[in-house]
Amino acid sequence: MIETVQEKSGFIPNVFLALAHRPAEFRAFFAAHDALMDKSEGLSKAEREMIVVATSAINDCLYCVVAHGAILRIRAKNPLIADQLAINPWKADLTTRERVIIDFALRMVDDSGSITDDDLQQLRNDGLDNDEIWDVGAITAFFAMSNRLANLTSMRPNDEFFGMAR
Amino acid sequence: MIETVQEKSGFIPNVFLALAHRPAEFRAFFAAHDALMDKSEGLSKAEREMIVVATSAINDCLYCVVAHGAILRIRAKNPLIADQLAINPWKADLTTRERVIIDFALRMVDDSGSITDDDLQQLRNDGLDNDEIWDVGAITAFFAMSNRLANLTSMRPNDEFFGMAR
Amino acid sequence: MIETVQEKSGFIPNVFLALAHRPAEFRAFFAAHDALMDKSEGLSKAEREMIVVATSAINDCLYCVVAHGAILRIRAKNPLIADQLAINPWKADLTTRERVIIDFALRMVDDSGSITDDDLQQLRNDGLDNDEIWDVGAITAFFAMSNRLANLTSMRPNDEFFGMAR
Amino acid sequence: MIETVQEKSGFIPNVFLALAHRPAEFRAFFAAHDALMDKSEGLSKAEREMIVVATSAINDCLYCVVAHGAILRIRAKNPLIADQLAINPWKADLTTRERVIIDFALRMVDDSGSITDDDLQQLRNDGLDNDEIWDVGAITAFFAMSNRLANLTSMRPNDEFFGMAR
Amino acid sequence: MIETVQEKSGFIPNVFLALAHRPAEFRAFFAAHDALMDKSEGLSKAEREMIVVATSAINDCLYCVVAHGAILRIRAKNPLIADQLAINPWKADLTTRERVIIDFALRMVDDSGSITDDDLQQLRNDGLDNDEIWDVGAITAFFAMSNRLANLTSMRPNDEFFGMAR
Amino acid sequence: MIETVQEKSGFIPNVFLALAHRPAEFRAFFAAHDALMDKSEGLSKAEREMIVVATSAINDCLYCVVAHGAILRIRAKNPLIADQLAINPWKADLTTRERVIIDFALRMVDDSGSITDDDLQQLRNDGLDNDEIWDVGAITAFFAMSNRLANLTSMRPNDEFFGMAR
Repeated sequence: MIETVQEKSGFIPNVFLALAHRPAEFRAFFAAHDALMDKSEGLSKAEREMIVVATSAINDCLYCVVAHGAILRIRAKNPLIADQLAINPWKADLTTRERVIIDFALRMVDDSGSITDDDLQQLRNDGLDNDEIWDVGAITAFFAMSNRLANLTSMRPNDEFFGMAR
Repeated sequence: MIETVQEKSGFIPNVFLALAHRPAEFRAFFAAHDALMDKSEGLSKAEREMIVVATSAINDCLYCVVAHGAILRIRAKNPLIADQLAINPWKADLTTRERVIIDFALRMVDDSGSITDDDLQQLRNDGLDNDEIWDVGAITAFFAMSNRLANLTSMRPNDEFFGMAR
Repeated sequence: MIETVQEKSGFIPNVFLALAHRPAEFRAFFAAHDALMDKSEGLSKAEREMIVVATSAINDCLYCVVAHGAILRIRAKNPLIADQLAINPWKADLTTRERVIIDFALRMVDDSGSITDDDLQQLRNDGLDNDEIWDVGAITAFFAMSNRLANLTSMRPNDEFFGMAR
Repeated sequence: MIETVQEKSGFIPNVFLALAHRPAEFRAFFAAHDALMDKSEGLSKAEREMIVVATSAINDCLYCVVAHGAILRIRAKNPLIADQLAINPWKADLTTRERVIIDFALRMVDDSGSITDDDLQQLRNDGLDNDEIWDVGAITAFFAMSNRLANLTSMRPNDEFFGMAR
Repeated sequence: MIETVQEKSGFIPNVFLALAHRPAEFRAFFAAHDALMDKSEGLSKAEREMIVVATSAINDCLYCVVAHGAILRIRAKNPLIADQLAINPWKADLTTRERVIIDFALRMVDDSGSITDDDLQQLRNDGLDNDEIWDVGAITAFFAMSNRLANLTSMRPNDEFFGMAR
Repeated sequence: MIETVQEKSGFIPNVFLALAHRPAEFRAFFAAHDALMDKSEGLSKAEREMIVVATSAINDCLYCVVAHGAILRIRAKNPLIADQLAINPWKADLTTRERVIIDFALRMVDDSGSITDDDLQQLRNDGLDNDEIWDVGAITAFFAMSNRLANLTSMRPNDEFFGMAR
């Protein structure tokens, strides 16, 4: 798996090395990651990466913001959107739908405890279906885990990510 | 898998039902869970459950505090420790080692971004080895994800958990 | 007074011992407590205990959550409600009226400074009368004091309270 | 009691009127107040008022800061100290002993949950005895209650208090 | 310039001395100050000082609250308003227009990042024109700078300011 | 002045346009800016830009992080440092001296009120002289103002800044 990624991108993202010492956790981590991120029904791939960048920035996760910022620039074909979302998610250039998605993702970061069925109904009124709501929540939740693992190990983004697709 | 749990405990914990609509995520979630929680080298099983209860309480996760509180009472053979950790983790009856573990877990909940190598060295000085440090961090990270999924769905703990092993 | 309580419950709650070294403060404390809690006009006794449990949990007060959690389970004839309110007051099983009471009590805990007459009028619109509003506020205020005294002395709940009425 | 105060100060402080509708609470409130504030063994009366002003300011309590600010100016024979403590308690002109008292009082306002016996031992090392520690804690706790009652009712300080002893 | 102020007020406000060691910064600082504060089109001078007092109090700036509190009492011909705004800006005696101004100023203190064009439109609906909105924002911004400079140097308000115009 | 900048950089940074409607404020703003930023005694120009990027990120200021991030990459001849400081200032690749500077700048952002002479003495012990300490504080203070002005107007960084010097 690592070799496939290396062939495709020309380098091995550091996250693979950081988790490799625990094979069972490594496999589960990437299985969860791929189930949530390698999909484009409902949320588009760019929307998924937007959630990652905006929520990882709140959690001060250098690796996730830089690495997924690069992927977001590619997916969204937009060289500005990753920095906009990382630095100030409230003022980024978003469509109305993207605004709904990001606002809910930000709420999931720090205040999931007070989310009630009324909030989910509001999201449906704002145009998200149940699968999309789950995806916003589950991607935020998965990166709440990833951000903490990356912070625990002070994981460095590969230098290649910083300048990619600008 | 669900049937095995049901046979053992006499009921199906609600977390299984909440995740069942997404089989790939379900499998990855429980693979990660079991890799971190069904182990007793390094951190004991009771210590692992202590981390879950203390950090899930900070995240206001009713399901995780109640369900893992029950498991903690069983693992630690102590009917008081789960409520102590959930309500005030700083005043719970902990050994010096448990205090080190819980203090670091609490830091991982809300302030992982400022953790540096100096902090990890301090944990080694306080008696944790590298595998134990990883486990404290990784369990906290995994439940940062779980807490958000449970909060998203307002997941209810089964009534059975509340009174178990008191 | 202590003997009466001991006869009724079979043990002396630790709060009596913690305050006994200051007789004048002891008498004033319990006079205020009884004036607010031994009453059932307006707010029911269960509603009063709900306020105590929910607000004391925000203040991390082990004694008040555990001791009044036990009383709440008895008053409400509900073995689950105390843990629900202590762990996540936004998702507890509450009636509409109880929701209004608890939401206002939570506001009193950390943000009483910005409460204005408009907020009180809203509570009246939501069905509370002036005496009930005062009681919600005054009970929260009294336990803001109690929680700090219990925390100052790391007051332990008697073991009996943890498992009572579950 | 109200008449005595009126004779002494020439006006009836509004707190008496705000609590008069609940005689039992009124009596308990002032009994507790007097037990803590009308005393000068251990903490001096000026030190007691310093605690009130500094902690009530954190709680945004207009009545307590203004009324007790006036009393503090009188007790300390210092026209500047009340405003200093209310606006920035870290930079007020305090003696080393007053600094210890105020720092602990501020901790009691918002973070009593994490106070442990080690903290109390540190206060003893810094020169407070057990009765003084209790008084700092109990005065802060009592005004945690008073501040919330005053905020609940948007209690106005009498105009007389603002300019007194400047 | 300093001499003019001294002649007018009878003393040299300490802020002049604190900045004098950096003449270029001194000149720029007072040029910006005077451009924003010595003006009475749009916002009145009293309204400008209200913004200073309310926002400087949030930033714990002793110098700005005390010195501008004195100026506010003079400008507003009101001996109570400065203490009201400094201690609890939500309960001060304000007109509807002043309430709009102060609420927006408070938002600028700690949460300017999430202000959007919708918020500015709301202010226009509430009766402020574009120049007034800019002034509320720019005065708050200027004192965000001043408060930090005063805090850095623990700048003392001259004793004269405390009792002025009470 | 604007034309000079335009000639040098090939475009007019948007900050010039945003402030041009108020000539007196414009002149004072840039006079203060240049007095603090166009200098290299004591703090180097790269160190000054590091302070801007790290503190503006805490304030969610898109314009300042992106525009000064570009300048920092140029001044420090380091394509990675701006993103590192903006996303996680605690884990950026800093020298010991830069670490001291940035830690104090971060404290100035949100907690200048509790800074005392002891803190300044600690900075001297850590190797900063009085002029350098003033510069760290004054640059942070100036951008506390700038960040709020930029946020007030939702000021957009010119597209050119995002990709510059990567």
